[in-house]
Amino acid sequence: MNDQQSGRLILGIDPGTTVTGYGLISVSGKSPSLITLGIIDLRKKEDHFRKIRTIFEETLGLIDRYHPDEFAIEAPFFGKNVQSMLKLGRAQGAAISAALYRDLPVFEYAPRMIKMSITGRGQASKEQVASMLQTLLAFRGESMVLDATDALGAAMCHFYQSSKPVADRRKYRNWGDYIKKNSDRIKQ
Amino acid sequence: MNDQQSGRLILGIDPGTTVTGYGLISVSGKSPSLITLGIIDLRKKEDHFRKIRTIFEETLGLIDRYHPDEFAIEAPFFGKNVQSMLKLGRAQGAAISAALYRDLPVFEYAPRMIKMSITGRGQASKEQVASMLQTLLAFRGESMVLDATDALGAAMCHFYQSSKPVADRRKYRNWGDYIKKNSDRIKQ
Repeated sequence: MNDQQSGRLILGIDPGTTVTGYGLISVSGKSPSLITLGIIDLRKKEDHFRKIRTIFEETLGLIDRYHPDEFAIEAPFFGKNVQSMLKLGRAQGAAISAALYRDLPVFEYAPRMIKMSITGRGQASKEQVASMLQTLLAFRGESMVLDATDALGAAMCHFYQSSKPVADRRKYRNWGDYIKKNSDRIKQ
Repeated sequence: MNDQQSGRLILGIDPGTTVTGYGLISVSGKSPSLITLGIIDLRKKEDHFRKIRTIFEETLGLIDRYHPDEFAIEAPFFGKNVQSMLKLGRAQGAAISAALYRDLPVFEYAPRMIKMSITGRGQASKEQVASMLQTLLAFRGESMVLDATDALGAAMCHFYQSSKPVADRRKYRNWGDYIKKNSDRIKQ
């Protein structure tokens, strides 16, 4: 059970039908720390439904074991083709269902947003994101573990987003709206 | 609980984030009969995650109420664009997760296959499929109920497929293979 000592727990998931990564961080005040990260390996499960079932049940298992407070997923909105997006959507649907079934609030972040949040650059490589996460959370990466860094990135991205002052999170309808609300930031 | 009297129960689902349809049939010997059909209306749920949660929980609720033996879903493999396929995939993933969580075997059928199975024509209109289902299962359709006919079609399609003699279900690698295995069916 999550308590005051361990702080707020954020579970990040990067759903996929080949490998589903997960990363769990604990947040006390402004400093996040790594609790665990790993992968659910689906390569040996040939049947598509077996993969979906495993994603659902393993995600539920992680939630029941660690009792996270929030759930963040890496969710690409663009893909190569409709078939691969349907498969990805099913994998996401299974992980999201597990989180919602356990009453967790779900937050989704696009890969570009996660990269931007961790490295400051939306076009950063997977290796750069992994390297920065290792520095931020003080852990050494092995190749198996690197498959889980996108999930960990989603958890960290959610930590940064939810730690921002409300003013920084305000939304803008368009560029004109942004200028109006940020006149102090715009160089004349 | 399903017993000998009610026969084998097949739950059909047509997952979607606007409306998710369901249809339940009971099969005793060779004659299917309608148990229930209806829709899960998601139009008033604006939040995407609320829709996913509702699909998962309502599907689980149907399973726990009727105890079906098999689960059939209508699963389009083609769509307009990657975004809509991702959404559809999530809806499917939620429904499939609920079925697998309750240990149900899942079968998926493409819309064309369902139309072919019910009407004999893969290009049949929704109305033609609905009309044929009303005849086969002796019920009167109202407009609300018609949204559920694709789900009912999936259940009926699975009934037909699983009732076929094994010989009829054999698969063919190509046209040559079909001719070889069906020389008695080919007009010379």
